[in-house]
Amino acid sequence: MDWSLSIDKAIPKPLRVIFRGVGQVFFCCNAVTGFIFLIALYVGGITAGLAATVGVVSSTIAAYLLGFPEDEIDAGLYGFNGTLVGPCLFLFLEHTPQLWLYVVLASVLSTVVLAALMRILQPYNIPASTSPFVLTCWMFMVAVYSFDGFSRGPVLPAPVIPADIATAAVVTTEFASLSKDAIEAWYTAIAKGIGEVMFADSVIVGILFLAGIAITSLRGALMAVLGAIVGVAIPIWLGADKTLIEMGLYAFNPVLTMMAVGWVFLKPTTGSALLALLAGILTIICQAGLANFLAPIGLPTLTFPFVLTMWMFLFAAGKSKYWGN
Amino acid sequence: MDWSLSIDKAIPKPLRVIFRGVGQVFFCCNAVTGFIFLIALYVGGITAGLAATVGVVSSTIAAYLLGFPEDEIDAGLYGFNGTLVGPCLFLFLEHTPQLWLYVVLASVLSTVVLAALMRILQPYNIPASTSPFVLTCWMFMVAVYSFDGFSRGPVLPAPVIPADIATAAVVTTEFASLSKDAIEAWYTAIAKGIGEVMFADSVIVGILFLAGIAITSLRGALMAVLGAIVGVAIPIWLGADKTLIEMGLYAFNPVLTMMAVGWVFLKPTTGSALLALLAGILTIICQAGLANFLAPIGLPTLTFPFVLTMWMFLFAAGKSKYWGN
Amino acid sequence: MDWSLSIDKAIPKPLRVIFRGVGQVFFCCNAVTGFIFLIALYVGGITAGLAATVGVVSSTIAAYLLGFPEDEIDAGLYGFNGTLVGPCLFLFLEHTPQLWLYVVLASVLSTVVLAALMRILQPYNIPASTSPFVLTCWMFMVAVYSFDGFSRGPVLPAPVIPADIATAAVVTTEFASLSKDAIEAWYTAIAKGIGEVMFADSVIVGILFLAGIAITSLRGALMAVLGAIVGVAIPIWLGADKTLIEMGLYAFNPVLTMMAVGWVFLKPTTGSALLALLAGILTIICQAGLANFLAPIGLPTLTFPFVLTMWMFLFAAGKSKYWGN
Repeated sequence: MDWSLSIDKAIPKPLRVIFRGVGQVFFCCNAVTGFIFLIALYVGGITAGLAATVGVVSSTIAAYLLGFPEDEIDAGLYGFNGTLVGPCLFLFLEHTPQLWLYVVLASVLSTVVLAALMRILQPYNIPASTSPFVLTCWMFMVAVYSFDGFSRGPVLPAPVIPADIATAAVVTTEFASLSKDAIEAWYTAIAKGIGEVMFADSVIVGILFLAGIAITSLRGALMAVLGAIVGVAIPIWLGADKTLIEMGLYAFNPVLTMMAVGWVFLKPTTGSALLALLAGILTIICQAGLANFLAPIGLPTLTFPFVLTMWMFLFAAGKSKYWGN
Repeated sequence: MDWSLSIDKAIPKPLRVIFRGVGQVFFCCNAVTGFIFLIALYVGGITAGLAATVGVVSSTIAAYLLGFPEDEIDAGLYGFNGTLVGPCLFLFLEHTPQLWLYVVLASVLSTVVLAALMRILQPYNIPASTSPFVLTCWMFMVAVYSFDGFSRGPVLPAPVIPADIATAAVVTTEFASLSKDAIEAWYTAIAKGIGEVMFADSVIVGILFLAGIAITSLRGALMAVLGAIVGVAIPIWLGADKTLIEMGLYAFNPVLTMMAVGWVFLKPTTGSALLALLAGILTIICQAGLANFLAPIGLPTLTFPFVLTMWMFLFAAGKSKYWGN
Repeated sequence: MDWSLSIDKAIPKPLRVIFRGVGQVFFCCNAVTGFIFLIALYVGGITAGLAATVGVVSSTIAAYLLGFPEDEIDAGLYGFNGTLVGPCLFLFLEHTPQLWLYVVLASVLSTVVLAALMRILQPYNIPASTSPFVLTCWMFMVAVYSFDGFSRGPVLPAPVIPADIATAAVVTTEFASLSKDAIEAWYTAIAKGIGEVMFADSVIVGILFLAGIAITSLRGALMAVLGAIVGVAIPIWLGADKTLIEMGLYAFNPVLTMMAVGWVFLKPTTGSALLALLAGILTIICQAGLANFLAPIGLPTLTFPFVLTMWMFLFAAGKSKYWGN
């Protein structure tokens, strides 16, 4: 919105670039939005907030030192991958003093990988999005098996052959009713689904994120909510693990997919909203598939289902007479 | 052949596009050929025929709705991946009513993935071929571990670490003699090898496919037979599992590779026939390798060994003074 | 150096192309350097030397027969992947007479894959480097599970889930002291690190390789030594398996990365030397990560950590105002 963009321009440049970097996690080139996201991260937990801060600062400074285009840095494009790298490594690895150095190193690598992927995707005019964060964190997370100096935290599941996953699902809540419990379960799952984009298992953080997005764009906020609804409804229909659904762990990927396809990268029409819905549904299947692909090495999907689905739809849009750009 | 192309043009457009879509599985833009393939599929089994029909119709309609180029749709290019998605999911997953919906969704996704890959490969003038079918089916097949609403059928092997595969080979037939049994084993393996391109473990279906190809091109049919021979002879020499060889499961990939390299995409010379032979042989090793790569997640290679080998040879052809295009 | 290039030009063309092919393993388009490398390989072991010779000859002849550009062949670009394929398959697979045929086939494929990757990477002006060797050898090495005619040798670790790797590390030497033993351990690990680029677990071979590089470029030799030092120091700090460090198995990838980034592909400045140092450090983490990724199928990383890291830095350099080319 106009007033927030005025504030955005008034903020001193170094801070503005950092805040915009945080905002870009949800495609918002807006320092006010980014500031709200950062507050929300600290509300979710001091360590997560600090890790995100270290990540966004490291990756942005690395971009300056490596001489990447200043207009892209100013838009916060070299910040959002670092913003995600920090809390991700702190969530999944054991907390040690040297983990901070590991976060800095990973954030710097995410900047290099981003520049590389932007260069590769440039002829196609397709964004790299959060793929550098995912690829870098996978590499750093699976590497720790080999290093005595680091360990995997309790949240990372042990590597298993997919056959051993089956029937881990436990029915904990009945979503399919009109009881007060069911409505609360939906509400919680949707809010957490938005929060989990930055690893926050928290309703309040999700609502703060949504408020931040709404400041930049109401259509963006609408797509985020629709994505979260898709990310609860479709897994229920497919019979997925209800614990994961309740925590919003099926929702954060379609949230991003629907925002990307239905708001950011295609013309904002009814047609692209319908396309976003289709993309959101397919993101769920992609997420379940990728999760099982990664099971033997014990890694989470992170936001790669979103990245893959978005790439497919944006590349395909280049061949369409309706959505071509 | 000329007469078949005259019939092709006389068929009403919607039917022609669907039949051509089926024909394109073996690179035949010819509705007569496609019609024979479809008959053959129903001969192989009603469910497989219906699933292929649902697949080809869904993926083609999706291409219209998504606004992809009409000349490409008319050539059946948006049909063959759906044609393969249908029987594939019905072969490997448990038959339930909702599986039909799953097939429709996967066929639609295969159309999006095809458009995306065509866009990516456009600057290189390289075909996406059946890669969208493979990528989509892998995703949908490995996703079912996470969904109570779907189960894997008995044909899909359980995920294992490759070390546990060893010595599963059982010698069932002696190919290396001139006895009547050996000749019959060769004949069966070759015919089934062509049939297995569309998952048909049947001699008669393989022969019908070959007849359909011959209507479009005799060189194409010759390459298909040579590919099947390579796909029996080389695995025997390498000492591969004889049960797989007998079922034609080492042959369907070199069939496609030799057709693509020796007939469709390069100039039809003696040189490209020799190159096709080399590509066919390497496809066998690629197939064994990929099968073991996929073992820990319990997925079949489908036609990806063909896709990978063909891509390597066609990309490389762009650097050759003999085969450059 | 000038005198070596004069000799290079005086050598009869067929021999020169072969020697240059060997030299290109360390980016040296210099027949004298290649000749020294070949001598070193035979010093390391007759079989390794013969396998490398068969590999480089097969892949180079294949390039001629397939009609790839003659200036590229003359520079030895179609030789170095074959040079690596030979000793690699002889190190990791059981020695049988038919293994020689397998090596020829793999070397030919490496030439096709190289041409394909050069075509793909051409618009970006990025080298394929040793990726064809890695991809081909992975395929051939994992395929042998399916073939009775071939077996994996004792050096290849059995496939395991990464969780079972942990704490395999055994402290065998104390690097962190100023004792005579520690200095010898460093010296051994650094020299072997250079030797292991061509699978030689030998100090003398490593020193001969370094001498060969120094003949072509002193900066190249300096980067190789710095890469080896990084490949010992960083794994020690991270707490990696000391047996692997001692054998130089963490060092051969950063050796190549630092040579590529700090000498061959970017302008030779202090800036690119610092960039090479960063790339070298990240190569270590990439190597540990990739090793654990590949654990479930029982494959070694070979030089892929170097390839991945180099690609990221060279693609990224295209966006930098300092290193852009």
